Amino acid sequence: MSVIYERVALIGLGLIASSMFWAIKRGGLAGEVTGYARSRETRDTARDIGLCDRVCESALEAVEGADLIVLCVPVGAMGDVAAEIAGALKPGATVTDVGSVKRHVIEMVGPYLPQNVHFVPAHPLAGTEHSGPRSGFAELFDNRWCLLVPVEGTDPDAIERLRELWLSMGANVDEMDADHHDLVLAVTSHAPHLIAYTMVGVADDLRRVTDSEVIKYSAAGFRDFTRIAASDPTMWRDVFLSNKDATLEILGRFTEELFALQRAIRTGDGDHLHAYFTRTRAIRRGIIEAGQDTDAPNFGRGGSRP
Amino acid sequence: MSVIYERVALIGLGLIASSMFWAIKRGGLAGEVTGYARSRETRDTARDIGLCDRVCESALEAVEGADLIVLCVPVGAMGDVAAEIAGALKPGATVTDVGSVKRHVIEMVGPYLPQNVHFVPAHPLAGTEHSGPRSGFAELFDNRWCLLVPVEGTDPDAIERLRELWLSMGANVDEMDADHHDLVLAVTSHAPHLIAYTMVGVADDLRRVTDSEVIKYSAAGFRDFTRIAASDPTMWRDVFLSNKDATLEILGRFTEELFALQRAIRTGDGDHLHAYFTRTRAIRRGIIEAGQDTDAPNFGRGGSRP
Repeated sequence: MSVIYERVALIGLGLIASSMFWAIKRGGLAGEVTGYARSRETRDTARDIGLCDRVCESALEAVEGADLIVLCVPVGAMGDVAAEIAGALKPGATVTDVGSVKRHVIEMVGPYLPQNVHFVPAHPLAGTEHSGPRSGFAELFDNRWCLLVPVEGTDPDAIERLRELWLSMGANVDEMDADHHDLVLAVTSHAPHLIAYTMVGVADDLRRVTDSEVIKYSAAGFRDFTRIAASDPTMWRDVFLSNKDATLEILGRFTEELFALQRAIRTGDGDHLHAYFTRTRAIRRGIIEAGQDTDAPNFGRGGSRP
Repeated sequence: MSVIYERVALIGLGLIASSMFWAIKRGGLAGEVTGYARSRETRDTARDIGLCDRVCESALEAVEGADLIVLCVPVGAMGDVAAEIAGALKPGATVTDVGSVKRHVIEMVGPYLPQNVHFVPAHPLAGTEHSGPRSGFAELFDNRWCLLVPVEGTDPDAIERLRELWLSMGANVDEMDADHHDLVLAVTSHAPHLIAYTMVGVADDLRRVTDSEVIKYSAAGFRDFTRIAASDPTMWRDVFLSNKDATLEILGRFTEELFALQRAIRTGDGDHLHAYFTRTRAIRRGIIEAGQDTDAPNFGRGGSRP
């Protein structure tokens, strides 16, 4: 319960920004949190629900005097926002972001920032399928990872202070370089999302299996895919376009592997399938042991034995 | 709370059978439930935890005098079990199953059953990533669908009675023909499972992204895939081998669609991606409205705003 930044500005007021606000309030981590969103409707909603101590009518107003500026807009909009606020940044302030892609953000944002401002890109690995200012909650980052991706030559104190903020918001913090980050995320998040979007789209297209049947009988499997495929379209469009190479590389590997399994099905090679499925089961065990998911059956949707 | 079958025999004591037992007990739906599993360890566990009123040392013993026999073994083992028990079935009894594939089960089981026994294949669309006798719970079928797939000429009273059992175990019940069932399930369950298995396998293979990183930073998306890919390997091997045509057809459509999206990424066609992701989002809404999943963010893993 100690103030880490006197004033924090949140630019963009969606799921991540609103969760940051509630987590900052929970911990008493900032003196004042200002906020700005491009859409009037979002700003009005923020005022209605008490999101941010002060909702501003412009990004310039929001960043004025701020010690930490957090860019919480879709990856494709980061460059424009940086250009807009660059002239109004307080000397010695830190600019960070929460984008799911890091190399592209560094290339788009970095050049606009003045020398007397620190730039520490970051990526909290947390989210839900909901978006918008009403979707945030203080616990979103608890026991999740936040990856800091500082560029070479960044002031270590600026990095340390941002790390302290994320730790105080409940997250675990690691550092990683941008290209490695983008590859890891292509595997653990970007490719899986594209695959889920694809499968849901295929189901929607099939005329012989009517929509109502797909929905009515959506079992585990497809049901989980639809949750993933309900994520914010703008955010994900930007992710794929800005992490193109790594995503396409992983999708290429995925297709290769999928073809091998299809072939095993076609030829009736049950041993191959069984061995493959046994191997993937072990990975799940590792994730539960790492504390990154619950072992409750069916994510707690079901009950327990009486 | 009324007895629907005087005696029920569960052959195979995994997730579905054990959940059926607890649901039958919850509702007082049978006079006695006998059970048999091929593995001694499973039978011992069942006795330890009070699963089944009587655990038998053979399938023949379990089905003796039973009014309803439920085959709860992997799809690939159904034929052998049917052959084993066929001679011991009580005249007028009903045989059903819980397999995820129906055409293959009908072809494998049907020929063994005597004329004086009813055969009503069924498939409860419910499950978790856990398996084995300890994994069941009474609420597994609550508000889930059970599809009855009766073959032509089946006694309507036998179908009605089985329907009543499933309704009393908490499920909704529909009827469907076998081929249509197998296609719908290929879309909503079988293809999604194979895709999830594939993606988890790819992640495991990548040497540049170490296992521990994939596990440590598993975000939403991949994390959900690992849950799906933790399902029982034997059950799923049998599903793919016995619903080969429909699964391969859907996977073919999936690959076609995936290639189109990969192309949009490669060429930078953001409009195509955004439109696609917006469409898939609507399907999620439909599933939640149909009551087949919860709208709680992140499946209730997260908290709520204070």
